[in-house]
Amino acid sequence: MNIKDKKNFSEKWFSYLQEQICNHFENLEGELKSKKKFISTNWRKNVSINGGGTYKILKNGKIFDKVGVNKSTVSGKFSKQFRKSIPGAQKDGRYWASGISVVAHMKNPKIPAIHFNTRFIVTSQSWFGGGIDLTPCIKDKKEEIYFHSKLKNVCKENSKSYDKYKSSCDKYFFLPHRNEPRGIGGIFFDYEDKNWEKDFKFVREVGISFIEISNSIIKKKMKKKFNSKEKEKQLIKRGRYVEFNLLYDRGTKFGLNSGGNTEAILMSLPPEVKW
Amino acid sequence: MNIKDKKNFSEKWFSYLQEQICNHFENLEGELKSKKKFISTNWRKNVSINGGGTYKILKNGKIFDKVGVNKSTVSGKFSKQFRKSIPGAQKDGRYWASGISVVAHMKNPKIPAIHFNTRFIVTSQSWFGGGIDLTPCIKDKKEEIYFHSKLKNVCKENSKSYDKYKSSCDKYFFLPHRNEPRGIGGIFFDYEDKNWEKDFKFVREVGISFIEISNSIIKKKMKKKFNSKEKEKQLIKRGRYVEFNLLYDRGTKFGLNSGGNTEAILMSLPPEVKW
Repeated sequence: MNIKDKKNFSEKWFSYLQEQICNHFENLEGELKSKKKFISTNWRKNVSINGGGTYKILKNGKIFDKVGVNKSTVSGKFSKQFRKSIPGAQKDGRYWASGISVVAHMKNPKIPAIHFNTRFIVTSQSWFGGGIDLTPCIKDKKEEIYFHSKLKNVCKENSKSYDKYKSSCDKYFFLPHRNEPRGIGGIFFDYEDKNWEKDFKFVREVGISFIEISNSIIKKKMKKKFNSKEKEKQLIKRGRYVEFNLLYDRGTKFGLNSGGNTEAILMSLPPEVKW
Repeated sequence: MNIKDKKNFSEKWFSYLQEQICNHFENLEGELKSKKKFISTNWRKNVSINGGGTYKILKNGKIFDKVGVNKSTVSGKFSKQFRKSIPGAQKDGRYWASGISVVAHMKNPKIPAIHFNTRFIVTSQSWFGGGIDLTPCIKDKKEEIYFHSKLKNVCKENSKSYDKYKSSCDKYFFLPHRNEPRGIGGIFFDYEDKNWEKDFKFVREVGISFIEISNSIIKKKMKKKFNSKEKEKQLIKRGRYVEFNLLYDRGTKFGLNSGGNTEAILMSLPPEVKW
């Protein structure tokens, strides 16, 4: 398959997945008799980067305090400083990137915040990246085991190294200034460029798994009661989330520095936070 | 005066000023029949940096949602990358630094958040830096004029360039990703090393002015009523404050990267924020 087809295939997949995730989350809201729907915003930009995207946000739901589902496709040239660290970008720095990312901040502090993203990057090389991870503020060993075993399965069925992806995830989502992990990890992969068809299949499976996993985790707890002390704990934990995203997250930094859409990039920030 | 005396003089001044500011703010709380006092924490560290400090925090007052008054003195070696940008640090990277910083987040959204800091830095050279700036979430032209004219006076009386410091402040407290200033500015100065005695006098005057200015601004509004819409506006504005401090603030980055005290550094973050 030529690179044009690969771009087209992956980009359309991300759009498809965005639709599915949003429908799914709206249905979950419906189960709690909420009629909340995602509000969709399209953006386009042709300065410093070319491209655009659609971000969909649902706020003040019965399940979600705020959930954003962001899909964008951009192209441009990496800055000279940035090029060194990007495979295949040394020569002229040109890139093309498309991806989907989801961050869900829950109303119920018993349900963890969920983060998911997958992307396809093209320089003179091309590869997939992405991952899923959870940020609970109240420990739930059973949920943790379920979550990791589901991810382990997806990796196994696609002949991918779960152990490697798990440890990349633990390494990435860590706050050195607090000496604490952001959450309980999950999987995080990058530079997947072995076999395009197989890698793309894996990326699709991770996307579908995200829907299944979030569905299962949310349904188990969405009707559970919680108290103000637990909510307070969640608001404090969200502060760590903000610290991570603004201080360390590579995607956030890259997005803001390259002139991406601020609202879409900072969609990941929680609706209400305490320090 | 030799450098040891300069260090001693400035450090003790910052401690003195910390006491004065805290007393002053506690008295203001008292005027609203609040008995809230600052809680003081000492920290020391001898890994990656040598030094310590005292941070004082007052939370959930009748005037202050959260105010932190932080004084610390640290020494160490700048990383190779960092040295290039620091006067007098090229040779061996050693530094000594002492300073005081204050961030006050108000209960009443009609009163702006106030930020103040002054510091004395020693490498093979030595200089003072600091500033004062306001972040209102509700426009108040009269207050703005009062604030800037007070700062203009302090500069004038000390033969310092108000215009230069004002424009440095505007330039520094700016969020490029939002294309908006953090607040209404103030003064911001760095690398003051013309005449130690005069520079130190200026730094002292700026400290005392900070007490006068905050006193005047707070007293004028501390009994004013506000509604939930105004409070909401404040919580959103605080989000911008967090974005600035975690994405761009040099002091925050330097502190966290050099292994400073996380609680003291992130003292500047507001107690409650919305996005």
